[in-house]
Amino acid sequence: MSLTFNLLNRTDAGGRRAELVLPHRTVQTPVFMPVGTAGTVKAVPQDVLESLGAEIILGNTYHLYLRPGHEAINRMGGLHKFISWPRAMLTDSGGFQVFSLSALRKVTDEGVRFRSHLDGSSHFFTPEHSMDVQIALGADIAMAFDECTEYPAERGRAEESLRLTMAWARRSLDHFRAHQHEVPWLRPNQENGVPQVPLLGPGNGNPTQSLFGIVQGGMFRDLRRQSAERLVEMDFDGYAIGGLSVGEPRDLTMEMIAEVLPLLPADKPRYVMGVGYPDEIEQYARMGVDMMDCVLPTRAARHGLLFTSEGRLNIKGKKYAEDQGPPDPACSCTVCRRYSRAYLRHLMHAGEALSATLNSIHNLAYYLGIMERVRASLHAQAE
Amino acid sequence: MSLTFNLLNRTDAGGRRAELVLPHRTVQTPVFMPVGTAGTVKAVPQDVLESLGAEIILGNTYHLYLRPGHEAINRMGGLHKFISWPRAMLTDSGGFQVFSLSALRKVTDEGVRFRSHLDGSSHFFTPEHSMDVQIALGADIAMAFDECTEYPAERGRAEESLRLTMAWARRSLDHFRAHQHEVPWLRPNQENGVPQVPLLGPGNGNPTQSLFGIVQGGMFRDLRRQSAERLVEMDFDGYAIGGLSVGEPRDLTMEMIAEVLPLLPADKPRYVMGVGYPDEIEQYARMGVDMMDCVLPTRAARHGLLFTSEGRLNIKGKKYAEDQGPPDPACSCTVCRRYSRAYLRHLMHAGEALSATLNSIHNLAYYLGIMERVRASLHAQAE
Repeated sequence: MSLTFNLLNRTDAGGRRAELVLPHRTVQTPVFMPVGTAGTVKAVPQDVLESLGAEIILGNTYHLYLRPGHEAINRMGGLHKFISWPRAMLTDSGGFQVFSLSALRKVTDEGVRFRSHLDGSSHFFTPEHSMDVQIALGADIAMAFDECTEYPAERGRAEESLRLTMAWARRSLDHFRAHQHEVPWLRPNQENGVPQVPLLGPGNGNPTQSLFGIVQGGMFRDLRRQSAERLVEMDFDGYAIGGLSVGEPRDLTMEMIAEVLPLLPADKPRYVMGVGYPDEIEQYARMGVDMMDCVLPTRAARHGLLFTSEGRLNIKGKKYAEDQGPPDPACSCTVCRRYSRAYLRHLMHAGEALSATLNSIHNLAYYLGIMERVRASLHAQAE
Repeated sequence: MSLTFNLLNRTDAGGRRAELVLPHRTVQTPVFMPVGTAGTVKAVPQDVLESLGAEIILGNTYHLYLRPGHEAINRMGGLHKFISWPRAMLTDSGGFQVFSLSALRKVTDEGVRFRSHLDGSSHFFTPEHSMDVQIALGADIAMAFDECTEYPAERGRAEESLRLTMAWARRSLDHFRAHQHEVPWLRPNQENGVPQVPLLGPGNGNPTQSLFGIVQGGMFRDLRRQSAERLVEMDFDGYAIGGLSVGEPRDLTMEMIAEVLPLLPADKPRYVMGVGYPDEIEQYARMGVDMMDCVLPTRAARHGLLFTSEGRLNIKGKKYAEDQGPPDPACSCTVCRRYSRAYLRHLMHAGEALSATLNSIHNLAYYLGIMERVRASLHAQAE
């Protein structure tokens, strides 16, 4: 069986407090998932992620396929084992990066031909191939291969893109269902003949990978509805809303999410991809989004932007040169307990590696802290 | 009072097991000191250094003087507080970096004029100024301002360089003795009026900074002897041997160390600067060297070179692409317990920040582990 989604309670506003039971971890939702593009959440060691309370992280299929290669990772027992991350993982389909990073893309109904941004080599991705790669990586959750509609997009373009995404969703699901038990952790271990099956409570059966469909449709409410309804008919293990946070105004993002959420089955997880700022993730969680991911906390950290209870703080600022206060006085993360703004500013200006690490730890603590508070609040509201 | 050096025992070969009581830490010697050039041991967070058992780290006066500036650090309570490192620290005099990093140096008897490698600005360092900067930074141990004689150097050049170093040693000491109580941690705290005085056991008095003289003399045994004897007459708190590991053959390094050690007082610490490879630090410790520092473990780590019980390992090698073994099978550091060679290789090839962090943690664990074993062995031999 795939995932189990135990809804614990619901608020009038639609917010949901739940447990998402995955092969490698029972994840408390709503959850924010740090992004570990190339098998590492940039600059943050795995034990620190664990201490921060991260229960599920992302891996990017496009990056891992190109380097070190999904077959190598598969031979080594899968992505969890390769990067030494025992908790839950999700891989995207590679679609978004093929469109945003690679060169010379050529899209046909069959799939996408593209050149690697690393060495210019030519590759062809189809829905079936994306599934094979994601099964080889063996995350707890895989994503259907889709085309992320750009913003702005005319209606005709959004319709055509959606047509492709829906056809690819069907093909993704068919191929996935036929092969989802081939994940590396169900394979007997070479040394002792025992599968690397993760420990689950009784009654959870033989855990396998899950596949989520992705709702697209640009910024057109009827296309979004159509997309959601068709995916629900196909019966995925969970549903994502993609193609948001691609440059559109915040109101529009929220409008699209609000349009789609009621159409998705209440007993399956809902994931909004690639969002967002701290206030956004809180807002969407309160509307009923169960899962979110974003590179923002770690990417902003590497540029010296800290998210704090007092707002955004650009640590490069001259005014912090002798500021001995913690980055965020209301934060109890290991960085805020130990280091000053002046020191973080110095590390940034000196180009020291520790800068990215400490800034990222704080920002992730801030994001994960928001979700922890939202979960407590959803719990309290429902009682 | 300055440092206390409690000799615990001695071996026939001259090796010494001792405790070096410094204001911020009682350090077990022989000790290896990780280098924290710009107020950070590159890529390694302070709490990890503590877990690794680092008891004393270095700061580079030249770098900290240029950025963020010793006066700013002093206003913030000194280097320990600025970087949040509660254990012992040592600062070098800035001399070595002035000669190796800066541009357009002009040396006179008075001091050195140089241009910053960061922005080309002009600066003038004298022995007195180096002392002022080091007192402002407030490490537990400061170093006399010296000229590091290059290798190879003719006798005439080595004599002239030594003349300068000896004159500067006298001036360093005189200025230091007049101002050594001005360290930031003896200043009453602005908030509560209490000095940041570190806790010491009873009988240790009012702890102040210590100053070490530096033996130079190129590769000439008689100049080295002369240098050592004159410094000992001046009565420093400890003695360093500088100008080694500058390109000379290993035998010559050892010859110079062997020549100098017997001339130094038995009841004061002896520090060989800027060495070395794992086998070197063990060898010198067994000869009676109490303190060593080197950028090698961290710099090599950033280039993918790991020191292991099986020898040096270049983690970039293709043969490690699917090697699931730990970097060093005999090592119990957090990196060797959790990550594989294949993963470390992947991080290096992908240019991920985590690469420098994990490689550095292992190499430092390896270096600190050597010293721990040497201390145990010196202890056992003496019984």
